[in-house]
Amino acid sequence: MNLFYAPGIIGETYTLDEVESKHAVQVLRLKEGDEIILLNGTGIIYTASVVKAHHKKCEVSILASKVMPERNCKLHIAVAPTKNNDRFEWFLEKATEIGVSSVTPVICDRSERRATNHERFDKVIIAAMKQSMHAFKPVLNLQTDFRQFILNSAPGFIAHCMDTPKMPLKQCNFDPKGVSVLIGPEGDFTAEEVAFAVQNGWTPVSLGSSRLRTETAALVAVHTVNLMMDNS
Amino acid sequence: MNLFYAPGIIGETYTLDEVESKHAVQVLRLKEGDEIILLNGTGIIYTASVVKAHHKKCEVSILASKVMPERNCKLHIAVAPTKNNDRFEWFLEKATEIGVSSVTPVICDRSERRATNHERFDKVIIAAMKQSMHAFKPVLNLQTDFRQFILNSAPGFIAHCMDTPKMPLKQCNFDPKGVSVLIGPEGDFTAEEVAFAVQNGWTPVSLGSSRLRTETAALVAVHTVNLMMDNS
Repeated sequence: MNLFYAPGIIGETYTLDEVESKHAVQVLRLKEGDEIILLNGTGIIYTASVVKAHHKKCEVSILASKVMPERNCKLHIAVAPTKNNDRFEWFLEKATEIGVSSVTPVICDRSERRATNHERFDKVIIAAMKQSMHAFKPVLNLQTDFRQFILNSAPGFIAHCMDTPKMPLKQCNFDPKGVSVLIGPEGDFTAEEVAFAVQNGWTPVSLGSSRLRTETAALVAVHTVNLMMDNS
Repeated sequence: MNLFYAPGIIGETYTLDEVESKHAVQVLRLKEGDEIILLNGTGIIYTASVVKAHHKKCEVSILASKVMPERNCKLHIAVAPTKNNDRFEWFLEKATEIGVSSVTPVICDRSERRATNHERFDKVIIAAMKQSMHAFKPVLNLQTDFRQFILNSAPGFIAHCMDTPKMPLKQCNFDPKGVSVLIGPEGDFTAEEVAFAVQNGWTPVSLGSSRLRTETAALVAVHTVNLMMDNS
């Protein structure tokens, strides 16, 4: 059955937004009476039927709903956007498929990309959420500066490539209430950034011996936490 | 220092192939005396210096070599090429970065893509090997038919999406001498294919509860085995 993203469902009827309406009516040619699945992105999966097949305001009637269990672990990934935008979008897609609660693009001292397209990133996340039928939409936080991020976040794990003592991420203890992992830009974090994070309670970690691209490192972190927390 | 792929080094001099010569001389503008790193793809990392900066036949002199340890586990991934070629190339790049010994494109009953470009796939692998400084180049086997593959391979693990008893891949016992994981096409393996694999000693496995795209499933399998075998 076809899936649609439908945030903020209240009551027994709902109007799909313009993008989803167009997809339903013009692309998929859905008609009155056709059944669809709605994901509200906050844990409820609905079945619904089309009531008015309007290409901009497709109205549906809710038939049933199912509350899905929350994930075992709230995983928050903060990652420097890659120079090549496709690589970051690829990461967002894959992280959403595998499972992540929230993502923050963090601008670091060595970031070559300092501007990101929030709306476009969110679209990538929504498409991947639908594709993988996840009931929870990962939250995409606004881009933030590295030091601001550290000062405003509960401490987590910072993965860097410098040759200083680090614990393998997979051996760390994860608090199911929230695990944050920070991944640096192509040129890595600066020593000052790592020191600043450590002073603020962050734990330096290693993702293994392979030299990984930023987006690969971020995905490896997502999968490692999921695997260790039995989320995946 | 700049890295080049240099298979088949024997003795103290070597001539880079046309692609690597062009990259060295025309793109990077290397001159006689410049030092470079060579990866032979079978476990040796060399330092060398440019002797003749020819744009088609760049000659180098070997200065030193270092034999790198083999990986803890020989991991072989057999995967149905995705309909969208970029997705498969993305998988090859990421699997090479994280670590894989060999890859076989396998054509299954439900494969929409039945032809692949071996040479191009190999280039993606070489680029990723250089980028991640891996001393061992993953072997790209020729595309093969599913049943031929099963009949000619030692049994391993087959990841499918059908609702039948399966063990989570991460709980399986891996033989460091060789672990094979089979990943199906977009529409999954057919029941007949799974039955054929099981009859031939393959073990059905699950990669978790998320609905993953083919290339994501393949990468999750690569990372799971690496993580469990302490390769990464």
